[in-house]
Amino acid sequence: MFQKFKDQSEGQHGRERTDMLQRHIRDLGLDGFVVPRSDEHQGEYVGPHSERLAWLTGFTGSAGTAVVLQDKAAIFIDGRYTLQAREQTDTKTFEQCDLVAQPPADWIARNLQSGHKLGFDPWLHTVNGARRLEIACKKAGAKLVAVDANAVDAVWSGRPAAPHSDVFSQPTQYAGVAAGAKTNILRDALAEAGADAAVLTVPESIAWAFNIRGKDVPHTPVMLAFAILRRTGEAELFIDKDRVQEDALRQLDGLAVFHAPAEFPGRLKALSGLKVLIDPAWCAKAIETALKDGGAEVVTGSDPCLLPKARKNPVEQEGARLAHIRDGAAMVRFLRWLDENVGSGELTEIDAAVELESCRRATGELQEISFDSISAAGPNAALPHYRVTEGSNQKLETGNVYLIDSGGQYLDGTTDITRTVAIGAPSDEMRDRYTRVLKGHIAIARARFPKGTTGAQLDTLARLALWEAGVDFAHGTGHGVGSYLSVHEGPQRIAKTGMVPLEPGMIISNEPGYYKPGEFGIRIENLVIVQPSAKRAGEECEMYELETITFCPIDTSLVDVSLLSVEERTWFNDYHADVQQKLSASVRKEEVNWLKSMTIPI
Amino acid sequence: MFQKFKDQSEGQHGRERTDMLQRHIRDLGLDGFVVPRSDEHQGEYVGPHSERLAWLTGFTGSAGTAVVLQDKAAIFIDGRYTLQAREQTDTKTFEQCDLVAQPPADWIARNLQSGHKLGFDPWLHTVNGARRLEIACKKAGAKLVAVDANAVDAVWSGRPAAPHSDVFSQPTQYAGVAAGAKTNILRDALAEAGADAAVLTVPESIAWAFNIRGKDVPHTPVMLAFAILRRTGEAELFIDKDRVQEDALRQLDGLAVFHAPAEFPGRLKALSGLKVLIDPAWCAKAIETALKDGGAEVVTGSDPCLLPKARKNPVEQEGARLAHIRDGAAMVRFLRWLDENVGSGELTEIDAAVELESCRRATGELQEISFDSISAAGPNAALPHYRVTEGSNQKLETGNVYLIDSGGQYLDGTTDITRTVAIGAPSDEMRDRYTRVLKGHIAIARARFPKGTTGAQLDTLARLALWEAGVDFAHGTGHGVGSYLSVHEGPQRIAKTGMVPLEPGMIISNEPGYYKPGEFGIRIENLVIVQPSAKRAGEECEMYELETITFCPIDTSLVDVSLLSVEERTWFNDYHADVQQKLSASVRKEEVNWLKSMTIPI
Repeated sequence: MFQKFKDQSEGQHGRERTDMLQRHIRDLGLDGFVVPRSDEHQGEYVGPHSERLAWLTGFTGSAGTAVVLQDKAAIFIDGRYTLQAREQTDTKTFEQCDLVAQPPADWIARNLQSGHKLGFDPWLHTVNGARRLEIACKKAGAKLVAVDANAVDAVWSGRPAAPHSDVFSQPTQYAGVAAGAKTNILRDALAEAGADAAVLTVPESIAWAFNIRGKDVPHTPVMLAFAILRRTGEAELFIDKDRVQEDALRQLDGLAVFHAPAEFPGRLKALSGLKVLIDPAWCAKAIETALKDGGAEVVTGSDPCLLPKARKNPVEQEGARLAHIRDGAAMVRFLRWLDENVGSGELTEIDAAVELESCRRATGELQEISFDSISAAGPNAALPHYRVTEGSNQKLETGNVYLIDSGGQYLDGTTDITRTVAIGAPSDEMRDRYTRVLKGHIAIARARFPKGTTGAQLDTLARLALWEAGVDFAHGTGHGVGSYLSVHEGPQRIAKTGMVPLEPGMIISNEPGYYKPGEFGIRIENLVIVQPSAKRAGEECEMYELETITFCPIDTSLVDVSLLSVEERTWFNDYHADVQQKLSASVRKEEVNWLKSMTIPI
Repeated sequence: MFQKFKDQSEGQHGRERTDMLQRHIRDLGLDGFVVPRSDEHQGEYVGPHSERLAWLTGFTGSAGTAVVLQDKAAIFIDGRYTLQAREQTDTKTFEQCDLVAQPPADWIARNLQSGHKLGFDPWLHTVNGARRLEIACKKAGAKLVAVDANAVDAVWSGRPAAPHSDVFSQPTQYAGVAAGAKTNILRDALAEAGADAAVLTVPESIAWAFNIRGKDVPHTPVMLAFAILRRTGEAELFIDKDRVQEDALRQLDGLAVFHAPAEFPGRLKALSGLKVLIDPAWCAKAIETALKDGGAEVVTGSDPCLLPKARKNPVEQEGARLAHIRDGAAMVRFLRWLDENVGSGELTEIDAAVELESCRRATGELQEISFDSISAAGPNAALPHYRVTEGSNQKLETGNVYLIDSGGQYLDGTTDITRTVAIGAPSDEMRDRYTRVLKGHIAIARARFPKGTTGAQLDTLARLALWEAGVDFAHGTGHGVGSYLSVHEGPQRIAKTGMVPLEPGMIISNEPGYYKPGEFGIRIENLVIVQPSAKRAGEECEMYELETITFCPIDTSLVDVSLLSVEERTWFNDYHADVQQKLSASVRKEEVNWLKSMTIPI
C-alpha cells in the first residue's frame, strides 16, 4: 500500500521535545527558533528525515510552521488543519494560530523583545520567506540569525537518514523532448534574463529538465537534488552518482556531471564573478548567501523550468490521455465494487481507499498514488482536504454522499479525479448543490476564451450557479498537474490567484465543490488540457478551449435535470457517451453493463 | 473650456533639443539620461513645468519614457499611443519602442555598454522603477547614477513655473468624514505596519486624508504636495502656506503644520531613528535615499490611504448619486442636441465635445471635466483612448456610430460615462457587436457575488457574450473612480489584473467595449458602487451586489433584442424606467418627451 492510515502523531512528546529544543537554543545564545514544515526544496512532500515539525509538535499536515521562544511556542496552520492540529499537538505547549489571519511574521513581531535573537535554518526558508522573518524581527527590534546546523536536528535522537532512492531515466518515449533540447531552452531563458548561470532548487524542475525521476519522497517521483546550469558547458547535478541508474547516466552523458551533495556549497562559491539566476520564491536563503559570499552577482527571476514544464508537449499530452483511460477504467472497477457492496452499511472510508488502490494496482502500471486519497463519508466530506486515519474512519451510510478524490502516478502521466456518489436516496438539498457544482464544472469544461485569458478570469464560471444560491466553495477551481511529476504544479491555476495566462498544453484540474460543515461535501473533478480552438467564421481572436481528459461516470442520481440548460444537458450526455466509448475496451467484461447503465442519457 | 483641441506637439524641435541634452549630459560625465513622463508624484496628469517628455520629444500622451544615449535615443509608448507618437515625434531621432513588448529596461540592457553611466532624476522614478533601471544597467555592466538636478531642466529654456493654485477645503458635507478621523485611521494603519511615520507622496492620498483639494494639474482636483504623518503629533504638509485658503487652514488647525516644499528633504532627514513607511510603487527613489541617508529605517508597504479612500463612506456615496443625476441630465441635453443636429452631416467630433462641455457647465456646478472627452466618430472610435485634435477631427457621418466617453468633476462626486449612438441606420454587424457589449455590461450590473471576490474574477462576465463570437476587447472592464478626485483610482478594478477583493463603497466603472480597427468602436459605461446584498433564505455567504449610479439612455436602435435573454431584457427596461424616473425632474421641459421616447421598453 502506498497509503497509510495510522495516525503517526507523536504529539504526546511535544512538551519534552520543546524543552530540549529550548535548552539547546539557549546554549546557542538564541532566544527562539523557527521550525517550518519545509525541507531544502520547498516541495509538497518531504522525506522522513525532514519531518522536523511533526517530530517537534506531533502535527503531520502538509503545511505549517512552529516558532519556539524561551517562554512560549506557537504553531501556525491554515484552515484545512485547524481540527487536526488541535488533536495532534499539545495545545498547552503550542499556541495554535491561523497561518493566514495571524501569520508567523505578525506573531514574531509581537512576541519577540527588543534585543532578542531569533534563529532560523537558512536552508529551510526561501529568500522571500527569510525576508519576511527579517522584517518581523526588525519590527520587534530583534535580530534574525542564520544557524549553521539546524537546532532541531541537534536534539532529535533517532532521526531517520536522508532518502537515497534510485534515480532513473524518464525516457523520451514519455518525456517527448530530450534533456539536451530542454537545457537548450533553459539556456535561452538564461540569456533572456541576463544571467550566466542558474541554480535549480526545485526537484520537479530538475526532474523535468534532465528527464530523470526518483522516489525520495512519498507520491511525487523526484529525487531531492540541486543543480547548477551554466550558459555553456555541462550542468552540475548534486546527486550521489551511486544512486543513478545506468539508463539515466547514459542519457546525461556529456550533458551533466554528478557531484556529491556535500560539494554543493563549494560549487556555489565557484560561481564567483558570474550573474546567477535564482527564484526567490523557491530558492533557499542559504544558497543566496553562499552565492553572494562567493562573489557571484545574484539575479532574481522565475525558475526558468516552470513555464516550459507546464506547457506539455504532444507526447506528454498523449501520455496523459492514455494514463487517464487506464485510470478511468480502474475508477469504474472501484465504483462498481462500491455500488455492489455499500448497501451492507459496513464499508468504511479505509476499506474504500484500500480497494481503490488495489484497482489501480491491477492495471499493472501504477508507480505510486498521486497523493493520499481523500476517502470521505458524510460530514468528513465537508473537509475539502480530509485524510482518513484509523481514528477518523467512518462507515459509508445510507442517506448521505461519499466523496473520493484520488490519483495515480503512471510513467506516462499523473492523474487526479474526484467523484461524489449518493448512498441510497440523496436529499433535495444534496441534489440541488450537486447540480450547481456540476453546472460550474460544465461551464469550465465548455469554456472557450481568447489567448491571454488568465485562470482568475475563468474561475468565476465555476461559481456562478452556486452564487445564485448564495453559496460558494473556499478553494480554487483548479490547480496545474505535472507529467509523471507533482500532482500540484504551478504556475497555471484556475483560482482567484491565477494570474498566469493559460497556454496550450497546460494540464489543470476542474474541481468546483460545495461543503456543508458537519453534514456533507461534494466535488466533481476532471483534468483538462488547454488547447487551441479552430477559428470559426468571423472570429478575430486566437481562441483556446479545454479538452477534458478524465473519463469516468458522474453520478446521475444526484443530478436535478430541471436545473440544467439545454447546453449543459447536452454536454453531460455527450460526456457520458465518451466515457462509455473510451472505457469499454479497458474495463473487464463484467463491468461493461454496469458502465452502460451509469452512462444512460438523462 | 477645460479641453483644448490644438495639437501642442513641438516634435519638430526633437533633434535640436536632444542634441542640447546630449551635450549637457556629456558635460556631467554621463553616457545617457532617462526622461519619464511622470513628475515627482506619479499621477496621471502633470503640470506644464513637468512636461519634460513632451518638450524633448513632442509626444504629448499620458504615459511614456525616453532614454537618450550619446549616439541614439528611444521613446517607449504603449499600444494606445503607437500612431500618435509616430505623428508627433521625429522618428529619425527617436526609435519608437513598445513599452510592454520592449520596455526601457530591456533596451537599456541591450544598448548600454560596459562601464557606461546612465543618469536619472531620482525624484521622477519610484523605488520599484529605479530598481528596474538598476537591474537593467547591471545586466549591461553599466552604472545607474542619480543626478542632483534634472538634466532636461538645465537645457529647457522657457520652462513654465511650478503650479501654485489655491488649496481649498473639501468640507465634511462632501467628504463625509473629518480629516482628524481619517488621520486616526491612518495612524492605526501605521501601527499595524510597525511604522512610526509614513511619507505620503500621492496627491490624491493627501487630498483625501486632509480633506483638501487644489487645481495644480488638469482635470484632477489636487495640489502637488508631500506629507509626513507620524504616529503622534501634527502631520507636516509641504505646501506653501500662502496658497492655502482660510477654510482649509481652519480645518487643519491642530492637525497639520505647513512647511515650504523646499524644506521637505530636510524634514525627511529629521526622521532619523524612526521606522518610516513608504509605498515603493509610488514613492520617489529620492525620498527613500533621503530617509536612509538621514538614518531612518525604511518600511515598505501599500500607501495606507489607498484602501480607505477607495471605500466611499455613505456621504460620498450619496454625493456620487447626486452628481450622477446632475451629470445624466446634462448628458440627456447633449444627446438630444446631437439627435437633432447630427442629420446635417456637418457636426464634428470637436463640435460635439464643445457642446457636451457646455451642457455640463450649464448645471452651474461643474468644477472641471474628469478627463479630455473621447469624442470619436467612425474609425476614430476604434481607438479606445482616442483624443480629438484639430488635426484628427472627423465629421459624424450617417451609417456609422459615434462614441462619447466623458465625465465631470463636481464637489460631490466625479463622473465617467460612455455612450455609443447610431447615426442613421447601423449595420447588422454593429448591432450584433453592440448587443454583445450590452450583454457584458448587464452581466456586470446584475452580478451578485460573495465577499472576497476580486475584480479579476468578475471580469469574465463582461466578455462571455463577445467570446461566443470569437471577439474580445483589449482593455480592462472597469477602473476605480474617486470622490471629487481622480477618475482613475486604485486599487479596485475589474480586469485581468484586478487582484483586490471588491468591498462595499468602492466605485468602479463598468465599461466593456468592442473595437473594429479602421471601422467602428463601441463602449457602454456606467459607474457602479459595491453594496452589501441582503441575505435571501438559505444563503450562507455574505453577498455583495453592484448599484448602478449612472443614469442616461442607452441607444435602443443598436440593440438586437433577439440576442437578449429574458433577464437581460428585463434589466434593460427596468434601467430605462429608472433613467426616466430619476432624470425627469432634472432635465428641461423640452427634453422630457425626448427622454420618454428614448426609454420606451423594448
